[in-house]
Amino acid sequence: MSTTPRLLLGPGPSNVPPRVLAAMSQPLLGHLDPAFLEIMSAVQRDLRALFGTTHELTLPLSAPGSAGMEACLANLLERGDDVVVGVHGVFGERMCAVAGRIGARVTRVEAEWGTALSADAMADAIARTRPRVVAFVHAETSTGVRQPVREIAEAARSAGALVVLDCVTSLGGLAVTLDTWGIDAAYSGTQKCLSCPPGLSPISFSEAARARVEARATPVQSWFMDVTLLAGYYGAERVYHHTAPISAIFALAQGLRIVQEEGMPAREARHRAAAELLIERLGTMGFEPLVDAAVRLPPLTTLRLPAAVTDAGEARIRRRLLDEHGIEVGGGLGKLSGQVWRVGLMGENARPESVERLEAALRALL
Amino acid sequence: MSTTPRLLLGPGPSNVPPRVLAAMSQPLLGHLDPAFLEIMSAVQRDLRALFGTTHELTLPLSAPGSAGMEACLANLLERGDDVVVGVHGVFGERMCAVAGRIGARVTRVEAEWGTALSADAMADAIARTRPRVVAFVHAETSTGVRQPVREIAEAARSAGALVVLDCVTSLGGLAVTLDTWGIDAAYSGTQKCLSCPPGLSPISFSEAARARVEARATPVQSWFMDVTLLAGYYGAERVYHHTAPISAIFALAQGLRIVQEEGMPAREARHRAAAELLIERLGTMGFEPLVDAAVRLPPLTTLRLPAAVTDAGEARIRRRLLDEHGIEVGGGLGKLSGQVWRVGLMGENARPESVERLEAALRALL
Repeated sequence: MSTTPRLLLGPGPSNVPPRVLAAMSQPLLGHLDPAFLEIMSAVQRDLRALFGTTHELTLPLSAPGSAGMEACLANLLERGDDVVVGVHGVFGERMCAVAGRIGARVTRVEAEWGTALSADAMADAIARTRPRVVAFVHAETSTGVRQPVREIAEAARSAGALVVLDCVTSLGGLAVTLDTWGIDAAYSGTQKCLSCPPGLSPISFSEAARARVEARATPVQSWFMDVTLLAGYYGAERVYHHTAPISAIFALAQGLRIVQEEGMPAREARHRAAAELLIERLGTMGFEPLVDAAVRLPPLTTLRLPAAVTDAGEARIRRRLLDEHGIEVGGGLGKLSGQVWRVGLMGENARPESVERLEAALRALL
Repeated sequence: MSTTPRLLLGPGPSNVPPRVLAAMSQPLLGHLDPAFLEIMSAVQRDLRALFGTTHELTLPLSAPGSAGMEACLANLLERGDDVVVGVHGVFGERMCAVAGRIGARVTRVEAEWGTALSADAMADAIARTRPRVVAFVHAETSTGVRQPVREIAEAARSAGALVVLDCVTSLGGLAVTLDTWGIDAAYSGTQKCLSCPPGLSPISFSEAARARVEARATPVQSWFMDVTLLAGYYGAERVYHHTAPISAIFALAQGLRIVQEEGMPAREARHRAAAELLIERLGTMGFEPLVDAAVRLPPLTTLRLPAAVTDAGEARIRRRLLDEHGIEVGGGLGKLSGQVWRVGLMGENARPESVERLEAALRALL
């Protein structure tokens, strides 16, 4: 099996650096081996630093980001609980679907796709429904919007609600400061700004969130995702719950080390500079950013397509980018399908060279 | 990061062969890249062959075996449904816990740990409760029992129940023939007899199981595990559901190829021969098999400990095996804790050399 090298400029996965690939191909250790548990402890420590939190219950869930979303909501919500969800893209929609299946009563606060949620509208819904949980997305991977967090989180907390934040496309690319913001449960993915393979979802639960889980009237619907059970393995006891995905943890450990070596301020600046260069360069070819500069998400830029692309068939051009130039970009998702491309400059790929390769390929194709 | 090489003779993970490690360190492809989807199709085809099924909905769930268990039960059971579960070890217990959280009414049919379930007792419970689902474990990783499948499955099907089978420690080490047995939903893990890293759960759903999911009165409680949504990505449409764990799929593709090259008859014979050699060699040192020969599970042998081990402290001897000889074996789980060791000779490790290294190390230590 050998795969053609790709430059992965879609909504994730991003390219994985050689150090991380090498870590992943190390011989295995057992999931209860003291040498492995040391690596797990380092991963949990590094994740806390990256999430900007002291929450003890911070861990890499053994499943992708969508499972992380479900773990956050399924632990905090019981049947009949009220939840307010901000919806301005696919992942806010998904939160509603997940919460609905849990049996929660969902109040949607919508905003135009490509714009940020209104903190006032969220505060109104919170005041009206006094929900158990308020959930929204920091970095909407379907639209490229970076949602300001603090005001909504404050409105939620002052109404006694717990706050759940989707950080899938921000962690490792933008500063995430759960404790400063007052977030009770957050989830991310490894395949975006951390430049690790997909498959794990870093999650973090505050003490208030854990207390809420302890106080539930009914058990968490999912055995696999119940954080009180997960705490047995990911806490001080280190007792068996399920078999942790050893090789993926090796990879994440190395990926987190790389983030630390660079430091988040430099890393965030690099993501911003790459996104600005992308918008400038592709702007000269008629690609227009969908999102206002004030709330753009540097790791993922949505671009309205010029006629040269739509006339030729946007899916066809994307396929030629992939086949002839080895470059993957993402199509529009949901109601933006066919209207935009999603260009990820995440983690290792947030560099001028990525923009230059994409620009050159597009100039050759259009 | 560099880890000391281990010989992994516990209940999984087993050692991963170099070809699989190399596959996992290949540069990534996107989860919608046609080149990746080809690999996914090959994995699904190979899993069908290995499960002995033509079930279209056969796929590697992006989470470990415990999540595979939950996916099978959560799709087929609704609140208030009856389920009969065979319980003769930790994983039957876990099925009860999972089904209970789903809101099903659980009827337990117990057998002594280390023995097989009685088909008559299962049939009685099925006749009495007319359950929606009958669930039991083919290969109890906590006890080392290989459960005969056919009679129980027939009793279930003739009562109109769907049959769920845990194949975590059998798939790739013992013949699994879902269609001949009449199994509607099965799950496994990659880190046992397939000698791939942990993190994925191969699952398979029959047409009857899918029809049951379609006919549910309530949505599946889990968005992440809902097979009707999973079918969008793992079926002909190949539409986005979640980001598949690319590197782990590369590894599984290679692991399945290795299984095919050897062929299941040879592979099963190799597992049986290794287990027999283990029992013979360690028998001379006072280790006694817990399980009757007729229902022993070759990939995982439980051994009662001689006084030389218990007197010295079994956990201490296991730790010295690991630290001084680089060999991991498993301790007893649940009510067998402290009483037995669980020695896995799975996949790549089911070879005389594994037994010889373990025997030599134990002779040095005792």
